[in-house]
Amino acid sequence: AVNAARLWSTLETMAQLGGTPAGGVTRLALSEDDRLARNLLRDWAREEGFSCDVDSMGNMFIRRAGKNPELAPVMTGSHVDSQPLGGRYDGIYGVLAGLEALRTLNDRAIETERDIVLVNWTNEEGARFAPAMLASGVWSGQFSQEYAYSRTDSAGVSVGEALEAIGYQGETPARAFPVHACYELHIEQGPILEDEAIDIGLVHAAMGQRWFTLTLDGFAAHAGTTPMHSRRDALTAFADLALKVEEIGIQHAPDGRATIGMAHITPNSRNVVPSRVVCSVEFRHPQTEALVAMEAALRQAADNLAARGVTANVERIFDYAPIAFDAGCLSRSEQAARELGYSTKRMVSGAGHDTCYISKIAPASMIFIPCVKGISHNEAENIYQSWSEKGANVLLNSVLLAAQE
Amino acid sequence: AVNAARLWSTLETMAQLGGTPAGGVTRLALSEDDRLARNLLRDWAREEGFSCDVDSMGNMFIRRAGKNPELAPVMTGSHVDSQPLGGRYDGIYGVLAGLEALRTLNDRAIETERDIVLVNWTNEEGARFAPAMLASGVWSGQFSQEYAYSRTDSAGVSVGEALEAIGYQGETPARAFPVHACYELHIEQGPILEDEAIDIGLVHAAMGQRWFTLTLDGFAAHAGTTPMHSRRDALTAFADLALKVEEIGIQHAPDGRATIGMAHITPNSRNVVPSRVVCSVEFRHPQTEALVAMEAALRQAADNLAARGVTANVERIFDYAPIAFDAGCLSRSEQAARELGYSTKRMVSGAGHDTCYISKIAPASMIFIPCVKGISHNEAENIYQSWSEKGANVLLNSVLLAAQE
Ligand SMILES: NC(=O)NCCC(=O)O
Ligand SMILES: NC(=O)NCCC(=O)O
Repeated sequence: AVNAARLWSTLETMAQLGGTPAGGVTRLALSEDDRLARNLLRDWAREEGFSCDVDSMGNMFIRRAGKNPELAPVMTGSHVDSQPLGGRYDGIYGVLAGLEALRTLNDRAIETERDIVLVNWTNEEGARFAPAMLASGVWSGQFSQEYAYSRTDSAGVSVGEALEAIGYQGETPARAFPVHACYELHIEQGPILEDEAIDIGLVHAAMGQRWFTLTLDGFAAHAGTTPMHSRRDALTAFADLALKVEEIGIQHAPDGRATIGMAHITPNSRNVVPSRVVCSVEFRHPQTEALVAMEAALRQAADNLAARGVTANVERIFDYAPIAFDAGCLSRSEQAARELGYSTKRMVSGAGHDTCYISKIAPASMIFIPCVKGISHNEAENIYQSWSEKGANVLLNSVLLAAQE
Repeated sequence: AVNAARLWSTLETMAQLGGTPAGGVTRLALSEDDRLARNLLRDWAREEGFSCDVDSMGNMFIRRAGKNPELAPVMTGSHVDSQPLGGRYDGIYGVLAGLEALRTLNDRAIETERDIVLVNWTNEEGARFAPAMLASGVWSGQFSQEYAYSRTDSAGVSVGEALEAIGYQGETPARAFPVHACYELHIEQGPILEDEAIDIGLVHAAMGQRWFTLTLDGFAAHAGTTPMHSRRDALTAFADLALKVEEIGIQHAPDGRATIGMAHITPNSRNVVPSRVVCSVEFRHPQTEALVAMEAALRQAADNLAARGVTANVERIFDYAPIAFDAGCLSRSEQAARELGYSTKRMVSGAGHDTCYISKIAPASMIFIPCVKGISHNEAENIYQSWSEKGANVLLNSVLLAAQE
């Protein structure tokens, strides 16, 4: 079993980097706070005698050597980056519980057959740079590095520039190597485990996602002199579209999700009828057919804005298929939880995770712990130390089972 | 008659300060480009031998002395500031036509009985700092200077700080002095004069305006794990409200206007259900009763967002009553236009203007010229030189008639 107090203290320390007054974190990918968090993680790893390699996407690979370096390693990892005004456990909990597992193996002087690699994946959130899971996507062959480097934040800074700026553009090419098994431990980010008082979620699948960038073009006009009927108002068109998007989500309830999280208005002045709105739209569903239908409905709604004199360009920037995790990986976690006496539930993830991409090139699965009221992507995100301990124990034992094979 | 070529060339020169690639201007109040435009105006005035006084609100008073300094002067003026991505004639045309009128009087060595004062009013647009007509409002006793100084832009910079930063916080208190008559020349910013092929609009009234800042508070949530029915989405609530605001405008057609020009979303990340939207709402109408009804409908719509789990705070930041201009002032302009052989039309302004506030303390009226397709608050705003000439001639002769009384 892990050292729960030590794990908790690393979580507390890490939460200071990008910490917000309301107790959350804003630690955007490749920001100064991300750099500090990466440095701290690397220092902790080196103190334990682990190597730390950085690849060309800034992914960090911390390796605890096993007896047989020629065998494919076991992998675990998550992400250090956060949402703006995000929570202090999303991502970082999986990374630090992985570190805690490796430290525990050191404490007990346990030698494993295989190496164990702990990864921090760059830009998981997709908040500063869209899409999400960008660097695990490159590593697993879903995106070219060229494409990833060219993605920009809202200030126009590219991923390539940001990697260089914080000194985390490594020499090693971001390309998959053989992996025996991969585990990611994460907070559920939803209410199910807490509601049902279950210790551990055994995640067997993840919803598909489609992300879009829409550009609505109307015509700027004076708010005082332009009658209602002669406006081509990009903002009221946006409002019309936003309610349609919500409707699409409701039509696909209970599994479907439809969200507009971001919008930028031009010129954004009180007495000017807006000329342009650029916004995000994202859909999620466990079935591809539903995502196809949701996208078709979006395109129809966008076309219908022509009746308002507003043109809508719909660009799909992310198509993330629903995935099923590996049964063999899951059964190790199931065994570990059973031996530890923890209650479990098989579940589907509504969130995307780096390990969804890893599952495309290696056997992989995920472990969830509850989080209070299911609140996530919110400064109020919270977990209890006892929950964090159980998750870390299941992770440790899942990884250990795989590493001794 | 004025020197139309000289007027046009000053307009061209001024349009370079804050000029945008698309031929418009972004010359926000108290910005660096505003400073440069003010300096240029002051230099031009001094070259003609006119004094230039700056008051504590940054209002600039350029004075051509008449024979009787003890008589109340005639005033004309408008504003140098613009909208973001605004037009190159809105405001500045009235200032430079006023300068051209004074230069013409110099050219002809015409002595007037009264002084003539040309004013540049600070922050007319209300784009960088709300509300609009802020400094003419202080000058005419509508707002306290303390209130005006405390207004902030979206970066948190206050009017007081911005005035100091560009060196335009003068010593003279911003307080009305007796004015014999005040004229403001402006582009119509609407389509009526061009549609009806009329040279000159004689503006006898201006619509009332009510401006609001709304803060909608929901709860940030993960876009993937949060089912549609358990969201408290500030953005879909905003969309709902925006369509209600549009409906309120349509219900008060053809005179009513209802506009949301500005919105800021928190945290504004693609995969986070937004926690907060702060937006503007503004209504306009020639009748106060209609404005009262529009406001009541807005408050009702805001309260109804509670059904979405979203609270809405409605703050009224601007209450600008409909006004009627002075008949005596209008008749001088009517006479001037008749003698010049120009066609005229009496009309109502949908836009607010500094001279609406001046009309509260002195006899005042306005002169409009057409603008192409009524386009304004848009980089595509345009006028022809022949139009600009006719307006300046009517201004010159209106002012001259008053200044010889
Ligand atoms: N786990 C998580 O919040 N990932 C961000 C990508 C997503 O929104 O699914
Ligand atoms: N003339 C003008 O555009 N003024 C700005 C204030 C308003 O929107 O009415």
